[in-house]
Amino acid sequence: MGRIFKERTSVDEALRLFLENISPIRKTEEIPLETCTGRVLAEAVISGRNVPHYRRAALDGYAVRASDTLGASPANPVLLQLSDRVEEGSSIWVHTGAAMPKGADAVVIVEDTATAGNIIEVRAQVYPNRNVGQVGEDIKKGDRVFEEGHLLRPCDAAVLVSLGFDRVKVFRKPVIAVIPTGDELISREKSGDVPPPGMVLESNGLMAAIYVNKWGGIPRYIGIVSDHPDSIKKAIEANLDTDMILLSGGTSVGKRDHAPQVVASLGEVLVHGIGASPGKPAALGIINDVPVVCLPGYPVAGLVALYFFVRPGIRKLAAIPKVPELILKRRLAAKISSKIGYVNFIRVIFEEDRVRPLTGARADVLSSVAKADGFVLVPENVEGYEEGEEVDVFLIE
Amino acid sequence: MGRIFKERTSVDEALRLFLENISPIRKTEEIPLETCTGRVLAEAVISGRNVPHYRRAALDGYAVRASDTLGASPANPVLLQLSDRVEEGSSIWVHTGAAMPKGADAVVIVEDTATAGNIIEVRAQVYPNRNVGQVGEDIKKGDRVFEEGHLLRPCDAAVLVSLGFDRVKVFRKPVIAVIPTGDELISREKSGDVPPPGMVLESNGLMAAIYVNKWGGIPRYIGIVSDHPDSIKKAIEANLDTDMILLSGGTSVGKRDHAPQVVASLGEVLVHGIGASPGKPAALGIINDVPVVCLPGYPVAGLVALYFFVRPGIRKLAAIPKVPELILKRRLAAKISSKIGYVNFIRVIFEEDRVRPLTGARADVLSSVAKADGFVLVPENVEGYEEGEEVDVFLIE
Repeated sequence: MGRIFKERTSVDEALRLFLENISPIRKTEEIPLETCTGRVLAEAVISGRNVPHYRRAALDGYAVRASDTLGASPANPVLLQLSDRVEEGSSIWVHTGAAMPKGADAVVIVEDTATAGNIIEVRAQVYPNRNVGQVGEDIKKGDRVFEEGHLLRPCDAAVLVSLGFDRVKVFRKPVIAVIPTGDELISREKSGDVPPPGMVLESNGLMAAIYVNKWGGIPRYIGIVSDHPDSIKKAIEANLDTDMILLSGGTSVGKRDHAPQVVASLGEVLVHGIGASPGKPAALGIINDVPVVCLPGYPVAGLVALYFFVRPGIRKLAAIPKVPELILKRRLAAKISSKIGYVNFIRVIFEEDRVRPLTGARADVLSSVAKADGFVLVPENVEGYEEGEEVDVFLIE
Repeated sequence: MGRIFKERTSVDEALRLFLENISPIRKTEEIPLETCTGRVLAEAVISGRNVPHYRRAALDGYAVRASDTLGASPANPVLLQLSDRVEEGSSIWVHTGAAMPKGADAVVIVEDTATAGNIIEVRAQVYPNRNVGQVGEDIKKGDRVFEEGHLLRPCDAAVLVSLGFDRVKVFRKPVIAVIPTGDELISREKSGDVPPPGMVLESNGLMAAIYVNKWGGIPRYIGIVSDHPDSIKKAIEANLDTDMILLSGGTSVGKRDHAPQVVASLGEVLVHGIGASPGKPAALGIINDVPVVCLPGYPVAGLVALYFFVRPGIRKLAAIPKVPELILKRRLAAKISSKIGYVNFIRVIFEEDRVRPLTGARADVLSSVAKADGFVLVPENVEGYEEGEEVDVFLIE
């Protein structure tokens, strides 16, 4: 049995191989607008109507024939009759958004008028269409308002309502099976009692399921599976109807680490052994077009594999468009030493204007993640960073 | 009737006054860990147990008495008996995470051994506790693991499971009433037909409700309310059991703009007229300790008021801790002109490495938001930015 993995694939190359094997879901569903946030449009939206659909007053004031106001000024006001129709010499009160009356082609804002009984004193000249919103000025019938693949935001729901939509067609969310493996695992329904020595409460699978949900997938978090190859095989086969399978645990090279071999027996292992620290034992595979990620059992290593592979995998499945990565720049409060040949995932905490790396933060020490505010990634070919150096900090979601 | 608001409060001052009148919700609830993301801990978490709760092997290998390996090297291996107990000269196979057998105080990793039948050849010396995880080494019984007010993340759920939690006590989410006002509004259940001239589909309230949900509140989106003062009053009174009330529309200075006056009659108007463009007509008030935001009816102005006041208001109610604002730096593809005395909310689209301001993007043109990727805020005292200048870009959520 070799000390470590014979091969080690760089994170970038592993991700490339993995994503190459993932196709965005093309199945669609119609959902109510209330739930559209974060969903991806499955078809372009072409407006079937004009917005506004009528000529409207853009401000409160009097609807007039512009020609009637010729030459009006504070010193030389024009007098108009307040009426129920707009004809030569007459005018109607309109509030913002009201339909423009027939015959009117402009609005004199209330601040440029005075009233005396039924007489309106107009103190400013207006040209035709002044303070009038034209039909289709916001959106024209036939306009392409959103493209297929647009990531919906709450403000987009307002646009869709005004186009006459109450529901919207989006791509189906990916369903992600989360399979915790290991004879040492105990379900957290029994979390009230401290488990016997050698047994631990299942927590990595739960963490994976919650991240899946956060990142736009629907987790199918199944019960604990024994780490015997046959049990793992059965569990995988029972979940090949999903869009991705996450196996948690059993992915190293020990006597009980069968996950990658089982994946190989059912399909193909694309990568086993990643240039990431922690995270090295992660494996990536594909079975009947279903991508599979074997998450290391050490919790921090599992978290790294979730961030590096599961998150982009879900985003590709869900056809979520790329958005610019939001990165925080901070100076280091202490130096970071890093292992050459691995992307090092360094947990950091905020300390005033700086970030401090958590030292002694081993892959099996989950509390280091609880303490951390974010992480810094040190690339494979970098030995570390000096105190005071500015680094990119990612917040832990 | 004055042309504009007599007073105008700066955005910063308005927000300060508003937040001063908001107290974080102290009521708590217990929720399952699956749903903990984004919730705020209502009490500190003190560990009731050690993690790990037993001495464990940190790697696959043989559990030994360290003293038995004294002087072992590849050239000079020590031979041990494979056994079912660890005594002088004997050893047991252990896998990562297994309980350390009685009598053993170190693990020789499998890579430093060879086996022949029941004989283990040990090729490296180990000192006591080598490759052994101690009880409580991750988390000690009595450790303060999370403080009250901690914003929960999926990885924290894993920590809480290992401490024996299945549920967690968090602050109750704020309930936010959303009241769309206006006689011109039509419910979107009737969105299939183009409304008559002068009537429009209710969309601003829906948008507000979806943002409330996104930002951590529970929206109570009620039916359309007439813009008569009595109707608005009744709707407010019926929702004073919530944590915040949003009135959409009727907040300007026109004949039909009654929202701020109604707020004044029931409680106090803190601010009416904001130094923001668009967004000027927004009003902020307080009725029986319930904060009230009057959102302008023009959709972009409404969106600005949501971002500037409702989002921070919800975060304060929900006791969500401050996180560093993630900002994107981009150069402008065209100049921005801005109105002095107002925070200008400039909608922008990404264009390669730059952002381009949307020109002619008036407050009533909702499609400008649909087209926009983000926004740039130009401070009150700045006249604008030049083409090529670097600006802070906020993504539209």
